[in-house]
Amino acid sequence: MTIKISIDCMGGDHGPSVTIPAAVSFAKHEPDAELILVGLEDIIRAELKKHHAVDHPRLSIVNATEIVAMDDPVEVALRRKKDSSMRVAISLVKEGRAHVCVSAGNTGALMAVSRYVLKTIPGIDRPAICFPMPNQKDSPTYMLDLGANVDCEPHHLHQFALMATALVAALEGKAKPTVGLLNIGEEDIKGNEVVKQTAPLLRADHERGILNFYGNVEGNDIFAGTTDIVVCDGFVGNVVLKASEGLGRFVKKALTSEFKRNPLNMLGAIFAFGALRSFSRRMNPSRYNGASLLGLRGLVFKSHGGESAYGYEWAIKRAYDAANYDVISRISKTIADLMPQSDAPSTPENLSAVSDLAQQKTA
Amino acid sequence: MTIKISIDCMGGDHGPSVTIPAAVSFAKHEPDAELILVGLEDIIRAELKKHHAVDHPRLSIVNATEIVAMDDPVEVALRRKKDSSMRVAISLVKEGRAHVCVSAGNTGALMAVSRYVLKTIPGIDRPAICFPMPNQKDSPTYMLDLGANVDCEPHHLHQFALMATALVAALEGKAKPTVGLLNIGEEDIKGNEVVKQTAPLLRADHERGILNFYGNVEGNDIFAGTTDIVVCDGFVGNVVLKASEGLGRFVKKALTSEFKRNPLNMLGAIFAFGALRSFSRRMNPSRYNGASLLGLRGLVFKSHGGESAYGYEWAIKRAYDAANYDVISRISKTIADLMPQSDAPSTPENLSAVSDLAQQKTA
Repeated sequence: MTIKISIDCMGGDHGPSVTIPAAVSFAKHEPDAELILVGLEDIIRAELKKHHAVDHPRLSIVNATEIVAMDDPVEVALRRKKDSSMRVAISLVKEGRAHVCVSAGNTGALMAVSRYVLKTIPGIDRPAICFPMPNQKDSPTYMLDLGANVDCEPHHLHQFALMATALVAALEGKAKPTVGLLNIGEEDIKGNEVVKQTAPLLRADHERGILNFYGNVEGNDIFAGTTDIVVCDGFVGNVVLKASEGLGRFVKKALTSEFKRNPLNMLGAIFAFGALRSFSRRMNPSRYNGASLLGLRGLVFKSHGGESAYGYEWAIKRAYDAANYDVISRISKTIADLMPQSDAPSTPENLSAVSDLAQQKTA
Repeated sequence: MTIKISIDCMGGDHGPSVTIPAAVSFAKHEPDAELILVGLEDIIRAELKKHHAVDHPRLSIVNATEIVAMDDPVEVALRRKKDSSMRVAISLVKEGRAHVCVSAGNTGALMAVSRYVLKTIPGIDRPAICFPMPNQKDSPTYMLDLGANVDCEPHHLHQFALMATALVAALEGKAKPTVGLLNIGEEDIKGNEVVKQTAPLLRADHERGILNFYGNVEGNDIFAGTTDIVVCDGFVGNVVLKASEGLGRFVKKALTSEFKRNPLNMLGAIFAFGALRSFSRRMNPSRYNGASLLGLRGLVFKSHGGESAYGYEWAIKRAYDAANYDVISRISKTIADLMPQSDAPSTPENLSAVSDLAQQKTA
């Protein structure tokens, strides 16, 4: 079964010089993937030529004449650039021509355009950005929201928990992933008003057997891997994500500078090369690249804007896995099972596109 | 000039087995410090005996019959344990018998008791917890609030910026430390409502030459050292602090496990010993132990509850420095200069105690 992935080739800080080599490499390694490269055709073709992949049978081009810049306001991306590579790539998912879209474009614009084009799943008020954080255990901690929703109400955090439960069940094969509510203490009395009001919603679902609610977790639990999922508002999530990236860079720089401090330490680095290389690989944030925009009627993955081709390929891989495990249908089903208001059939044409794809996959 | 430090010997996860050796060691290394050990006299005396310091001329004991447990609710600490080591140690500051108090007791109780006993500086609504985070530059990033105030209004964040400016000016000798407002993007349109409304307050003070407001900063800027001060609410600050601790532990564990993976890597660790030891020392969170409770009419320092004697001694050292640089007078002066409402003379007896101490110091 072939998974079709639309790539917003012009998005990110580096555009085609990163997105194309990543797509070419992924297509070579994954025989069941078909990649649709969206953007300025001439530029894409020239870049493909560099990588000797112009005639690759599983790489095709869809022309798009505009580019959403990294500092374009949401309104510009949404209203003025209707033929942007970002919008065209997302539209391919809506039209059922791709199972999933990958973009490194600016987060606000990507979320707004995705929401406008794909619409949210019935029962979901707001999509969220979900990211797998590395931790001390084998499988990552899925954290959301990471910046799509800065001011959240308790029912938003509740929906985030339900969506992430469906995602992690699909991606990690865990039937009942544990959910932690990010707080500043374990006790119920701790936290701000929104968090205090969210806990009872999650606990009620736990008692109904719908969620596996662990309780409150604290910042350190993210990297301890205490729970499979950590739920928080987009302000806190975004700050924690960026602080972690910043601390990672600081640690790397400090370690490097110690090994360069004097000739003896430099000699030590030569002997320690194997261990340091493994450590560096394990800690490489590029390996964790690829956040999912959850709650939409179609799959969209966001790569970090400044990623290398190596990191971008990881985002494509995550997108491929999510499509392969039919995450959208699973989330829709979870939410539909849980939420009475999701009975109302809204914009059925789009759901049928998703369902068409699901049928193609099982065919 | 002698700095008098009251030590809540019973506070923290380990109590006297950590606080006493730290106090003994600090007194030995710092001839201008006098430490008042507060707690159950017999236990303190027994612990001092172990460290051959019963007759140390700059260590004295003040008996206190109760102990605030790490899980005691605030009400218990405040209303039922009036002779706790925590309360007595703080009271010594109020009475002018100590310049500063150090405790590793539970944060909520410490803040509540400190506030009750010492009161806030005129013009300050809420005290905040301020902590020096390590960064890529030479001097730390002072971050606040780290958990005392979970739901903040813009004028609280504004006051945090003013207090931290006075603290950093005193401790780091920077006349105009830069202030960053923690946000999820650099642009003014980013962020939650509280942050958006705080930026104009800080900018107005910048234009009046009172604050050196850099603008919005993001999570990664904390460890890049972009600004001297980072202001945020206590929920975000606490989560970031604990997430950073968690990531630090994760990195340490990953590095250790790589060096233990096979005999070749273990050999590498021997050759790399010097660099790894320096790195480990530089990254040791104990070196950054010691948060200040800012905004009170007296100096209180909080040690991490689980710290070793080595880490606790760092908290004593920070407390000593703050008292030595007369931080309270500086903060009071800064706030008084800025805030019209601080003209009102409230509880002058306490301010006079602070002022008495200041005179003793200059004498």
